[in-house]
Amino acid sequence: MTNETQHDKPKSLPDAKLPRGFADRDALDVAATERMLAKIRETYVLYGFDVLETPFIEFTEALGKFLPDLDRPNEGVFSFKDDDDQWLSLRYDLTAPLARHVAENFDKLPKPFRSMRSGWVFRNEKPGPGRFRQFMQCDADIVGAGSVAADAEMAMLMADTLEAVGIARGDYQIKVNNRKVLDGVMEAIGLAGDDNAGRRLTVLRAIDKLDKFPADEIRKLLGPGRKDESGDFTKGAGLDAEAIERVIQFTGWGDQGAGAQSPVGNVALTLANFRSAVAGSERGEQGCQELATMAGLFEAAGYDNSRIVIDPSVVRGLEYYTGPVFEAELTFAVKGDDGRPVRFGSVAGGGRYDGLVSRFRGEPVPATGFSIGVSRLLAALRLLGKIDDQAATAPVVVLVMDRDQIAHYQKLVTLLRQDGLRAELYLGDSGMKAQMKYADRRGARCVVIQGSDERERGEVLIKDLVLGATLSSAPDREAYLKAQAEAQFAVSETAMLDGVRKVLARGA
Amino acid sequence: MTNETQHDKPKSLPDAKLPRGFADRDALDVAATERMLAKIRETYVLYGFDVLETPFIEFTEALGKFLPDLDRPNEGVFSFKDDDDQWLSLRYDLTAPLARHVAENFDKLPKPFRSMRSGWVFRNEKPGPGRFRQFMQCDADIVGAGSVAADAEMAMLMADTLEAVGIARGDYQIKVNNRKVLDGVMEAIGLAGDDNAGRRLTVLRAIDKLDKFPADEIRKLLGPGRKDESGDFTKGAGLDAEAIERVIQFTGWGDQGAGAQSPVGNVALTLANFRSAVAGSERGEQGCQELATMAGLFEAAGYDNSRIVIDPSVVRGLEYYTGPVFEAELTFAVKGDDGRPVRFGSVAGGGRYDGLVSRFRGEPVPATGFSIGVSRLLAALRLLGKIDDQAATAPVVVLVMDRDQIAHYQKLVTLLRQDGLRAELYLGDSGMKAQMKYADRRGARCVVIQGSDERERGEVLIKDLVLGATLSSAPDREAYLKAQAEAQFAVSETAMLDGVRKVLARGA
Repeated sequence: MTNETQHDKPKSLPDAKLPRGFADRDALDVAATERMLAKIRETYVLYGFDVLETPFIEFTEALGKFLPDLDRPNEGVFSFKDDDDQWLSLRYDLTAPLARHVAENFDKLPKPFRSMRSGWVFRNEKPGPGRFRQFMQCDADIVGAGSVAADAEMAMLMADTLEAVGIARGDYQIKVNNRKVLDGVMEAIGLAGDDNAGRRLTVLRAIDKLDKFPADEIRKLLGPGRKDESGDFTKGAGLDAEAIERVIQFTGWGDQGAGAQSPVGNVALTLANFRSAVAGSERGEQGCQELATMAGLFEAAGYDNSRIVIDPSVVRGLEYYTGPVFEAELTFAVKGDDGRPVRFGSVAGGGRYDGLVSRFRGEPVPATGFSIGVSRLLAALRLLGKIDDQAATAPVVVLVMDRDQIAHYQKLVTLLRQDGLRAELYLGDSGMKAQMKYADRRGARCVVIQGSDERERGEVLIKDLVLGATLSSAPDREAYLKAQAEAQFAVSETAMLDGVRKVLARGA
Repeated sequence: MTNETQHDKPKSLPDAKLPRGFADRDALDVAATERMLAKIRETYVLYGFDVLETPFIEFTEALGKFLPDLDRPNEGVFSFKDDDDQWLSLRYDLTAPLARHVAENFDKLPKPFRSMRSGWVFRNEKPGPGRFRQFMQCDADIVGAGSVAADAEMAMLMADTLEAVGIARGDYQIKVNNRKVLDGVMEAIGLAGDDNAGRRLTVLRAIDKLDKFPADEIRKLLGPGRKDESGDFTKGAGLDAEAIERVIQFTGWGDQGAGAQSPVGNVALTLANFRSAVAGSERGEQGCQELATMAGLFEAAGYDNSRIVIDPSVVRGLEYYTGPVFEAELTFAVKGDDGRPVRFGSVAGGGRYDGLVSRFRGEPVPATGFSIGVSRLLAALRLLGKIDDQAATAPVVVLVMDRDQIAHYQKLVTLLRQDGLRAELYLGDSGMKAQMKYADRRGARCVVIQGSDERERGEVLIKDLVLGATLSSAPDREAYLKAQAEAQFAVSETAMLDGVRKVLARGA
């Protein structure tokens, strides 16, 4: 009955480490995340969403390969074969499992179906600073609602959620765009059709640079290409001058100089720009109309331009979405990689994805939703000083002076716990000094000590570690003695709870 | 810019289903689990444990292959290769990741280190009824404490935790045993050593049957073997008569007839039996002494035999643990597979595992802990009627009568939400009847309606769906009219909130 697995053959010891892109989380982080998630969920509930939880593992085929971001390879999914040779995958987002759930339970669900989910998702990608292979999302989705009123709800929910967790109005912006408008622009400049997918991508990437470069640099990216300061050349989309101006028209940045502020905010102007840019494309017109309707809904519900804006620069993930898209950006400044201030940036994104449920059912099932990057939002709240770290109260530590009295010390610990006080018996093998150090590391405010002298008198010694540490700074002997008497005092065992509570009441 | 991935080639639609052994969870289940976990964590915190969260994926080598149950193959782990050809695995419990965490951060941690963790774990095994491949555990462990006082704390924490979640005293028993005593018995009957691993397992399985069979049937399993009612033969451990009696002596079941109650409960008697059974084995004597010390600690802390007992029948997982072992059994009766009442059974288990951290460090690191099967404990609470399902309050649904007025309906919804009321705009395409059916499926108590007549008058119609459903049972016309007036009434838009609150206040 020896432990064979360990001792069969002496091997080199395994490394105690995590794979790249994974991390442990301590009590403070877990608690702060939980508090933030509770506020998010509360807001989602107010909007009528109900919690759903799906498992971490799905059939690879059921998840599909619908990673929303253009730059990510489809293979960025952790997959493995089941016993019966079917491929399984770890979920890479909370949307694909929702689509499976809705298709599986279609007739049972109320429609439209409002669902919220939160939890860990996995991407088998190269990790980097702040980029993990396991991260948490918190999603809200409405399935079975084709109306852009559903998309408008999503944008408003994003705004309310950010305020609920503590992002002040003015420190965020919900940016709304529409895939159909982009499609219209592409049609108008002759980039429709499957053959032009690559060039469309180049155009979208150029537009995505709008917050970094002035319009003239974007023009180069849309045209022949652009050489950056280091001399590196980025190949452009190869558009002709007219097409380039149409795209610039769409962005609304016109001929403003470098460093100009985005012209978004003036809804009427933005929509007019959009309409000119898509002129002649029915799909483009439809997209403009949808945005106009949404703008009307925002206004009616009191969400003004400082909270939700129509913004042409939102193009990320547009190949994935089918209609309105939205992105929540935090606008306060942080130090960028080059030391210059930049906006904190995106913490949530989403849009209409009418194809995801229908791939199971072969009939159209409209859907819209968004996803919050939980760790990123938490990081923002930390930067803003909005996280009040609340560790569990430090325990009272009962020291073990005489090993043969451990049952009695255990009884003292039990008395403290039964009174609702967090308490620990010191369970190591070390002496007094190490025990005091342990209490210190545990952040204990006080320890309970009973040596043989105290035991004979039926007493315990209560030691206030905070007060005890200040004794040496007493101004005179009298003050020292007074402080010393408060920092360490004997009470009868029956008065232990009162004594401990007295010390705890002294505060931090 | 069409959605190529979906439309390239018409394929057969993927199945919308989950792999075997995985399940979705609805809002009620998630909320009930969360409430139960909160009570568990609160109790763990009282005992000085701090939350730690480890990721789902670890190096396979770091997890080791230490599945605690004898009957489980080591290969029951979901594994896959990382880009650099290293094997990764999904965690199969919360203990192996703790060992890795402790070894990785050894010098930084206070010792003894009290850690609690809760979350999903994965087993790549054949699923069955109530047996999932993803399930939740909630663990407490003390690392760096070799004293059995730490093991005693664990057993007491188990008892307190069960009471905290709502299991009444008398409905549970914490059973304690010790691997060393078992080792001593094995030594005494000549089954020590690696060569006898198989026969030891047969002996342990026979002891595990103590709650099912009378002592004479166990004797057969310890001896030549046993034929069951169907004629199937189970090969026995092949012990001689003296060895068989020594094992029976250890169990304390002696010559009691079939169906006799377990003799556990009398600690002095049980320990005396143990001492006789291990006579001559130093390791066995040590195990008995540890149990005697623990019994003293339980008594001093006021945990009597009705809560914690020394019980020889706890043998599951004994090859994994190195000292004291504990199991929390719920003792109330449920209907067994054969329709006859059986105890609900085990909901948590644990013990001392001194080998797990040391495999990284090459020096002894004592540890003890236990794990609660969260779903199983929740199932027990459900059976006991202790789960008060609290769904999120049903939403107020604002119907859409005129599509061109949707912005105004949205405003009404926003007003309700701003007042803290859970509210939804109906976002589907259907008419009045389907909208009412939707409100019904959402469990709405009331709906807000505004047709053109009401709009002209600046009013909304508030409809109480519960009261409305009772109209037909009104005893007379007068009662009908009175109920009807309460079930549906018009108020000015500015009085909408009051009107809705009046209906909600009517209760269920």
